[in-house]
Amino acid sequence: MGQKAVSMVDQSKDMKLVAGFNPSVTDLNPQTYGLNEDVKIYNELTDINVVADIWIDFSIPSAVFENTKFAIEHDIRPIIGTSGMSEEQTDELKRLADNKNLGGIIASNFGLSAVLMMKFAQVAAKYFAESEIVEKHHEDKIDAPSGTALNTARLIYEARGHDQKQHSSKDPLDTRGGDYHGIKIHALRLPGFVADEEVIFGGVGETLTISQSTTDRESFMTGVKLAIHEVMKSNHLVIGLEQII
Amino acid sequence: MGQKAVSMVDQSKDMKLVAGFNPSVTDLNPQTYGLNEDVKIYNELTDINVVADIWIDFSIPSAVFENTKFAIEHDIRPIIGTSGMSEEQTDELKRLADNKNLGGIIASNFGLSAVLMMKFAQVAAKYFAESEIVEKHHEDKIDAPSGTALNTARLIYEARGHDQKQHSSKDPLDTRGGDYHGIKIHALRLPGFVADEEVIFGGVGETLTISQSTTDRESFMTGVKLAIHEVMKSNHLVIGLEQII
Amino acid sequence: MGQKAVSMVDQSKDMKLVAGFNPSVTDLNPQTYGLNEDVKIYNELTDINVVADIWIDFSIPSAVFENTKFAIEHDIRPIIGTSGMSEEQTDELKRLADNKNLGGIIASNFGLSAVLMMKFAQVAAKYFAESEIVEKHHEDKIDAPSGTALNTARLIYEARGHDQKQHSSKDPLDTRGGDYHGIKIHALRLPGFVADEEVIFGGVGETLTISQSTTDRESFMTGVKLAIHEVMKSNHLVIGLEQII
Amino acid sequence: MGQKAVSMVDQSKDMKLVAGFNPSVTDLNPQTYGLNEDVKIYNELTDINVVADIWIDFSIPSAVFENTKFAIEHDIRPIIGTSGMSEEQTDELKRLADNKNLGGIIASNFGLSAVLMMKFAQVAAKYFAESEIVEKHHEDKIDAPSGTALNTARLIYEARGHDQKQHSSKDPLDTRGGDYHGIKIHALRLPGFVADEEVIFGGVGETLTISQSTTDRESFMTGVKLAIHEVMKSNHLVIGLEQII
Repeated sequence: MGQKAVSMVDQSKDMKLVAGFNPSVTDLNPQTYGLNEDVKIYNELTDINVVADIWIDFSIPSAVFENTKFAIEHDIRPIIGTSGMSEEQTDELKRLADNKNLGGIIASNFGLSAVLMMKFAQVAAKYFAESEIVEKHHEDKIDAPSGTALNTARLIYEARGHDQKQHSSKDPLDTRGGDYHGIKIHALRLPGFVADEEVIFGGVGETLTISQSTTDRESFMTGVKLAIHEVMKSNHLVIGLEQII
Repeated sequence: MGQKAVSMVDQSKDMKLVAGFNPSVTDLNPQTYGLNEDVKIYNELTDINVVADIWIDFSIPSAVFENTKFAIEHDIRPIIGTSGMSEEQTDELKRLADNKNLGGIIASNFGLSAVLMMKFAQVAAKYFAESEIVEKHHEDKIDAPSGTALNTARLIYEARGHDQKQHSSKDPLDTRGGDYHGIKIHALRLPGFVADEEVIFGGVGETLTISQSTTDRESFMTGVKLAIHEVMKSNHLVIGLEQII
Repeated sequence: MGQKAVSMVDQSKDMKLVAGFNPSVTDLNPQTYGLNEDVKIYNELTDINVVADIWIDFSIPSAVFENTKFAIEHDIRPIIGTSGMSEEQTDELKRLADNKNLGGIIASNFGLSAVLMMKFAQVAAKYFAESEIVEKHHEDKIDAPSGTALNTARLIYEARGHDQKQHSSKDPLDTRGGDYHGIKIHALRLPGFVADEEVIFGGVGETLTISQSTTDRESFMTGVKLAIHEVMKSNHLVIGLEQII
Repeated sequence: MGQKAVSMVDQSKDMKLVAGFNPSVTDLNPQTYGLNEDVKIYNELTDINVVADIWIDFSIPSAVFENTKFAIEHDIRPIIGTSGMSEEQTDELKRLADNKNLGGIIASNFGLSAVLMMKFAQVAAKYFAESEIVEKHHEDKIDAPSGTALNTARLIYEARGHDQKQHSSKDPLDTRGGDYHGIKIHALRLPGFVADEEVIFGGVGETLTISQSTTDRESFMTGVKLAIHEVMKSNHLVIGLEQII
């Protein structure tokens, strides 16, 4: 993700890479990494000493909080794609950024199609009393159902404010997936898929399906680029890409 | 559609059928039509003399304007599903209703899934530069592409404000469908379909698809019911179900 | 189904309805039922005394065995769509028909798309080691997963000859569906669906999906018509439409 | 494709890479290319002097004919994935291989899902009188409709033996795609797709859809591997992966 972000910045006419930070490198020559000679490379957080608008972070859970705090303290707007921070940590970062009127975003999913799917599902939930979710991922995905699917179900439930009605049927068996307040989530794990999800709403004589398919994780960079532009215009930190689209 | 509307009203606890109007019948006994004895049947517009909240009209293009005008003049909120009125006619009806602070709706499509699909497509159009539409209808549908597909393309175009970029490809052939400001519409006509449409947005490494499927035209009644409740709370006439959802 | 069969026969140039049998009617006048005056109506099995090529039976489980036996004994080729007979009963009927060199068919599903789907799934199973099934039915369907889905899974398993490999994933939850020798079946129950099924095969970098959708149960008549023509050319009774296509 | 083939051979327990041929390299040290030291590297066809069972060729149209001829003359079974040879050339190669009882295959598509889709479409064509094809490719694909889609349409047409019936509809517009003897092909070009195709058959009240999706071209290697095993058991050269599955 870090490399994809660097490529994205390079290819954007209105952006310029000023520095990179990686605590595990020893060679601080940018050209070693195929970067312009005026890009600064750091391996120590406290050494960082550049003026920048945006801090993009797709690092690891154990580092992201300190990184983001450092960015905010140095007036650099954070775009954070690393998940794993506690609610207390994100709350504190939000408070720090908001106090400085600094824009920023922390999001677990920068995929535009996934975020729009969730937004639309929230709206459709008000008009259709019943829905189910089918998510399809590669066979090596460890958890089932996926976090995005569970999040979609949660948004549908919250939009309705009550559990989905259950049909009494003879179904002694069950399969991989989940049930969130009556919203069934079906989890497929097969080679050939990257990350797909469909949310199906059923009404009398009609169905409405909102689905997204990921064929390459480079898709996240579209969301990051969008976030950069929004964060430059904002003066507070938001949680979730859905807050700015 | 008229019959489906009668069934829908009958099955709704908060609604009551008070009268029916059909200029082609001579028998004015409601029981001939399986209706309660206290339902009035009329075959002459000017004979209608009932107090009612709602006028549901799925009649024919040549009659709908006069019908709706009559309804508005008698303070009955119109729910109009007949298409074919001119813009001048709908404008006049809107003016008449608005002057009386009377709620009402004229819509060519009362299918909730289709209307939500169009609303979502409008939003997605802002985030994805490229989209195509595939619509699948039964083999006897006369026009291609469908009115709903063309309408979807128009909404996408308006949300973007410019033509969709064309890819230069070798495609000497072509097929059933259309092209609306660069948005390709693919029209399938096969037995086994009733009326389906999917709008596909493509971005780097991801696609977002909003699709709706109609298996029974009774689906329109969900939209009519919704419109009835909204129109009772409104004091002007709207064009299109999307205006109230 | 009986009525749909009558319509199908009426509309087929190479077929003629000669008689109808319904033990619950008392009026034996064919015109009461909108039939030609030369069609015989019977309400007693043993009264039936016509020369016919084909016996179409979509009656009830308790009657179908005796009906079919009667048909075979009178040299009328049976087309049986009623499910619920025991294996012993179908075996006996098969023996009776085969002894007389009489064509016939007993099938639980006359839907061509469903039967072809199952045939194709059997073939694909040899080339793809992993597959899952998603079936979508109306909310009032009592059993889950559907009989056709279970049958598809059984055919896939038999084509492979061994259980499907399981991925070790964290999936503490589960949802409506089933698992047949490692083949996961996902069962959706939502209004708006009639009867849909998709079988998904996944391999490295690719997926193959075979899906069928039923929008009107009249689809069964295409299979019945096909069966009639095949049965006229055959001299034994088969179990399952897949045996003749 | 060449590199993917090398990886596939390396990861297969029953295969061993003995040599590589690339006329544009000058360094003949296998370790330069990350290969074992006992792998021979050639840049001149006539220098090749190894005993091998299989010749895998994903080279360029101008070289493939001579390469394959060389392989056959040296008793190496050819697996050819390069397209662009003339019918005369493939005929001659087939004759050469068949005369030596040497197995081999020339195929434009080694994707199992695509080849099975075409096989199934051929069968379904006999039972459904009407079908349309929708193919979805990335925006940079030059030709439309795709070769695989046209090939699918051709197979459907040949299975039926006559043109597909046309519906008279008002469709003054058209869109990207094609029409093969009445079979409409719809070609979508959008970022986010790699290579997808669906073949839809429609009958009264039902549809049957066979679809395949490619998310990574590595999928071709499954077909190459399968071909290697089949070719070892065969004594003639076949055209098309569908001939051996």
